[in-house]
Amino acid sequence: MSKKYRVGILGATGTVGQRFIQLLADHPQFEIACLAASDRSAGKAFVEACPWKLATPMPEKVKEIMVQPIEPPLDCDLVFSSLPSNVARQTEEAFARAGYPVISNSSSFRMDEDVPLLIPEINHDHLGLLEVQKLKRGFNKGFIVTNPNCAVISFAPPLAAMHEKFGVESVIIATYQAISGAGYPGVASLDITDNVMPYIAGEEPKVEIEAQKILGKFTGQEIEKADFIVSAQCFRVNVIDGHTVSARVKLRETSTLEEVTEAITNYPRLDLQSSPENFMVVREEPDRPQPRMDRDTGKGMTITVGRLFPDNIFDYRFVSLSHNTIRGAAGAAVLNAELLISKGLI
Amino acid sequence: MSKKYRVGILGATGTVGQRFIQLLADHPQFEIACLAASDRSAGKAFVEACPWKLATPMPEKVKEIMVQPIEPPLDCDLVFSSLPSNVARQTEEAFARAGYPVISNSSSFRMDEDVPLLIPEINHDHLGLLEVQKLKRGFNKGFIVTNPNCAVISFAPPLAAMHEKFGVESVIIATYQAISGAGYPGVASLDITDNVMPYIAGEEPKVEIEAQKILGKFTGQEIEKADFIVSAQCFRVNVIDGHTVSARVKLRETSTLEEVTEAITNYPRLDLQSSPENFMVVREEPDRPQPRMDRDTGKGMTITVGRLFPDNIFDYRFVSLSHNTIRGAAGAAVLNAELLISKGLI
Amino acid sequence: MSKKYRVGILGATGTVGQRFIQLLADHPQFEIACLAASDRSAGKAFVEACPWKLATPMPEKVKEIMVQPIEPPLDCDLVFSSLPSNVARQTEEAFARAGYPVISNSSSFRMDEDVPLLIPEINHDHLGLLEVQKLKRGFNKGFIVTNPNCAVISFAPPLAAMHEKFGVESVIIATYQAISGAGYPGVASLDITDNVMPYIAGEEPKVEIEAQKILGKFTGQEIEKADFIVSAQCFRVNVIDGHTVSARVKLRETSTLEEVTEAITNYPRLDLQSSPENFMVVREEPDRPQPRMDRDTGKGMTITVGRLFPDNIFDYRFVSLSHNTIRGAAGAAVLNAELLISKGLI
Amino acid sequence: MSKKYRVGILGATGTVGQRFIQLLADHPQFEIACLAASDRSAGKAFVEACPWKLATPMPEKVKEIMVQPIEPPLDCDLVFSSLPSNVARQTEEAFARAGYPVISNSSSFRMDEDVPLLIPEINHDHLGLLEVQKLKRGFNKGFIVTNPNCAVISFAPPLAAMHEKFGVESVIIATYQAISGAGYPGVASLDITDNVMPYIAGEEPKVEIEAQKILGKFTGQEIEKADFIVSAQCFRVNVIDGHTVSARVKLRETSTLEEVTEAITNYPRLDLQSSPENFMVVREEPDRPQPRMDRDTGKGMTITVGRLFPDNIFDYRFVSLSHNTIRGAAGAAVLNAELLISKGLI
Repeated sequence: MSKKYRVGILGATGTVGQRFIQLLADHPQFEIACLAASDRSAGKAFVEACPWKLATPMPEKVKEIMVQPIEPPLDCDLVFSSLPSNVARQTEEAFARAGYPVISNSSSFRMDEDVPLLIPEINHDHLGLLEVQKLKRGFNKGFIVTNPNCAVISFAPPLAAMHEKFGVESVIIATYQAISGAGYPGVASLDITDNVMPYIAGEEPKVEIEAQKILGKFTGQEIEKADFIVSAQCFRVNVIDGHTVSARVKLRETSTLEEVTEAITNYPRLDLQSSPENFMVVREEPDRPQPRMDRDTGKGMTITVGRLFPDNIFDYRFVSLSHNTIRGAAGAAVLNAELLISKGLI
Repeated sequence: MSKKYRVGILGATGTVGQRFIQLLADHPQFEIACLAASDRSAGKAFVEACPWKLATPMPEKVKEIMVQPIEPPLDCDLVFSSLPSNVARQTEEAFARAGYPVISNSSSFRMDEDVPLLIPEINHDHLGLLEVQKLKRGFNKGFIVTNPNCAVISFAPPLAAMHEKFGVESVIIATYQAISGAGYPGVASLDITDNVMPYIAGEEPKVEIEAQKILGKFTGQEIEKADFIVSAQCFRVNVIDGHTVSARVKLRETSTLEEVTEAITNYPRLDLQSSPENFMVVREEPDRPQPRMDRDTGKGMTITVGRLFPDNIFDYRFVSLSHNTIRGAAGAAVLNAELLISKGLI
Repeated sequence: MSKKYRVGILGATGTVGQRFIQLLADHPQFEIACLAASDRSAGKAFVEACPWKLATPMPEKVKEIMVQPIEPPLDCDLVFSSLPSNVARQTEEAFARAGYPVISNSSSFRMDEDVPLLIPEINHDHLGLLEVQKLKRGFNKGFIVTNPNCAVISFAPPLAAMHEKFGVESVIIATYQAISGAGYPGVASLDITDNVMPYIAGEEPKVEIEAQKILGKFTGQEIEKADFIVSAQCFRVNVIDGHTVSARVKLRETSTLEEVTEAITNYPRLDLQSSPENFMVVREEPDRPQPRMDRDTGKGMTITVGRLFPDNIFDYRFVSLSHNTIRGAAGAAVLNAELLISKGLI
Repeated sequence: MSKKYRVGILGATGTVGQRFIQLLADHPQFEIACLAASDRSAGKAFVEACPWKLATPMPEKVKEIMVQPIEPPLDCDLVFSSLPSNVARQTEEAFARAGYPVISNSSSFRMDEDVPLLIPEINHDHLGLLEVQKLKRGFNKGFIVTNPNCAVISFAPPLAAMHEKFGVESVIIATYQAISGAGYPGVASLDITDNVMPYIAGEEPKVEIEAQKILGKFTGQEIEKADFIVSAQCFRVNVIDGHTVSARVKLRETSTLEEVTEAITNYPRLDLQSSPENFMVVREEPDRPQPRMDRDTGKGMTITVGRLFPDNIFDYRFVSLSHNTIRGAAGAAVLNAELLISKGLI
């Protein structure tokens, strides 16, 4: 039996923090060592501090862990972070500087030039940036890697498949995002019952810039962003988990529907612990994907694509979906950590 | 006191039929004379036949009206129709041929070359087609007019305002459609609770072709369709009433945001009985329009536009909303009837 | 034209405060003069301070009113209060002492011996307590009257009808309460989507004690509480407005179903401005009352009773429903104010 | 490896039929051999015939099974039935007469004197009725066993614990039932969004009579029903899975809260394949049980009890919850089949 890495979770009491705990509770490579949360929670047993909102029960082993303040040192080998963006930047940098690998789900560092923004199946070579990062920031052992925004992860994978083969020129997006994306208490029930919210603060700009970096090329020194444009309108709908995206894509080269379908379906998977059997699946039924039916595919790590058709203005249209707090947050970060281990970087 | 027109309602027990009754119950120009519905209902008192689903009570005056079969003759001056498309074509033609003005909410005749597809504020001059229609079909006194699909009405008005001033080239649409649009029993609760449905049978093609006819020019003989393309992806969301639309528009001429806002805000209203004080309103708040908050604006007859911004791929993006069973169905037909009266055509 | 009373609203930005504004905007007897809210809001125009959540728009006339701190003096003739219970006691007493009639929807004073807990149709004679109150508290012109908890109002009226005729001995209640009862942001969407909450903090004790006072007898000096017991289990369900109650009642005297139905149906109404045409209605359909269909009956002021049957353990069972923010809150207080005017007490 | 029993599922395409397939797909004792459904489905591959509505995907192994008509013979060792009550009586009897053990979730035979109505943990000795049944009906190898109504299973277990120790005299119930209990399409979304339905056809009588048989004593010849009375009001709420019950219980003997809690907590479990680790759990948190959080406890086979307190009219009040399509339907039947195997009756 190989040794387990001892992990700390920053922001452990939040919606994504809870997913980290759920995903790591029985993970063969990781062991939850430290739980850190805001001052209000610090000093309490986790079971007292955390308003647990997942449908699976809180794992016994974390209940009595004493919540610590969110600052180094923590007695662990690496940290997962799901801090709110207003505190993430300073805190994550502090942990990296103190020697911890920081696997972050926060948005703060995603667009920093020297920080990898990872979807392991797509751009694991971006890990080469870590050398640049250490040099530039004077980090010793520590570093920061990030995963994308929870809505971006729903469409970036099919986009990657198309981009690689046919070149993407423009993408027009409208989202149908789940309430769990706003954390807890998050969305007020009076705002979303019998309603749609056409606005999520700060979301559209994020959704419009991240994919170009993710699908960019690592030159050995930096990421050359992919040269397509994304236009995004983001909406909150009355769904618990699962972000659905409506997409129209204009390609640079001509392609047939069969070629596009094949590019998505055959896009290579990885073989990490949390990798789903299928990175992406393309459904042929007219009424899929649906969040309640498809979000848990591949234990929440598979992206489901459907309604893939030629478009009458752009080249193709499709609908895609992923689980926003698993593949779109905690699961993405855990996969990043597994990638780092497999590359010998942790 | 002027005489009231005596109306028949075809499909009176359905969701839209109920809205007709609600809107006509105290209407100064109309009086409900006949209620017609499928064989299952015919012969029963309306109160027995109809599973009333509106939050306002069934008007007393219709409760004891005996439901009649859906066939001429009916003892009335005109008929409103909200028949399912599989029976609408034959039945509505039969009524028109029998001499009745048919004001239809069904999709059957909308795209027929000689049938006006009306949004009174936008294209009341299309009523000129009625002469063509009577000649072509050999109708005597009867005729057929239609109103648009309930999703089209949410974006066609702001589009009309832009088209008239700057010329529309392309429109990319994603919809957030309410469950009442599917009638009753309609959408199963297991399909929409904690869920989004990415498919509404037959909807996307309708949404892609109607606006070009509505915004077309009447030459005196026919409608020259407007030469833009609409791409639509249609979704059902967990909202009772109110269709929201996300839109990106490419224009032929340059324009400023102020000019576009003004074109929408100042688009002329009509002065019919059911005309709202504002045909369209543009909201400046970041989180509007919302179906629960805005669908009843102007008694459900106003289109609410919001999040109107320049787009990074097309020229403008916006979100618009209308009440799908009022402005998008029964209210639209009632407004059409009022228009016909005002023009002396009934 | 008679003079309008100038009113202040304490807690104007909350869910109930908004209902006060909606109900008073076009009220023939009242005119909104002052809006008071917490320090965070004070000093701002109401339109800036208030997250308006009603489906009808914010009345123009209140938009520019400057929100004031919640303390006397306010330039008005009386105040409506919907303060949170932690501040209501001290603040409402201060206003009464400063000479204002305080018509309160808060729970603080409801069970005080010298404070009327009113449902005008049932116990308007309890207003006699105001003399006792003034004497006891040394109030000059000011005083405090209260209305019941929003769940109590759903079942107290049919209970009153039964109690008067047959004597109530015990009542067993389970509630189905709407999210608007918790204010805004109130219930988190993650707590109520696809869920039921079996707990509302502090609610069950209130529901178990208020009806006895409401149905009590005023001796000229005090209220002799009605001698029945209420057992209540309170639940939050995924409904926007409208509290539904399941009830079983044990009576002291035998009665027939017809007599009980008649006692409810014929219970006398009042003739105040906001009095509904029917104080209570008994529905015969098997599937009524339903909150979405029945909460707006009588503009939200009618109590709808249904499923009234003999019970196999107690004597009768029924389901009753009222609009929790109208008849159960703001509308109740407005009715109380109308009653006070009609009795010459304001 | 022991042999697997080959099973047929009657009503395989319905909501409960789908749960049977989900629960049996990897079951160590059973193997799905036949799927039978209505004439409309018969002759099609299951994947074509069934509108699959579970969030886990349809098992590969059933997709190509050809759906058969619901009539003997079927090539299997036993049948699970979830037929609608109008066809269940005749069909299930036909299968039993043809020699099949029929493990039914339908209501048709539940109250027949010679048919066991089983909750294995509570009354497995009622299996003695099978001898009586065979004799009376002239069955050879076949027989019928049933499981309770999905709402009854939520409260019968804690009731059994109390009844055994202290004797139950009366029970007053109000339910909060999930939409999946009505099958598919079942509850219309327009009926349950922003709404509560106070009526489920035929439900209240079933809920009022089944517990007395379940908790009855088997004399060797018949079941002597337990002599308590149940009063039930049944409501549908906007929840996907999980029936919640509000209960008040009057006992024959005095007891302390600790004794009652202990009676429930320590009620013996069984050791069958599908038995949960805990038959019942008593939660101490004020806001549990909740359907979304607790329905999957014990893989949907545990009953969760909470808010257990002394009552001011009866002796105790509590809230209990079980998963209506697992412990309340398919899982109950599978457990019954496992019990039959363990007793050597299959």
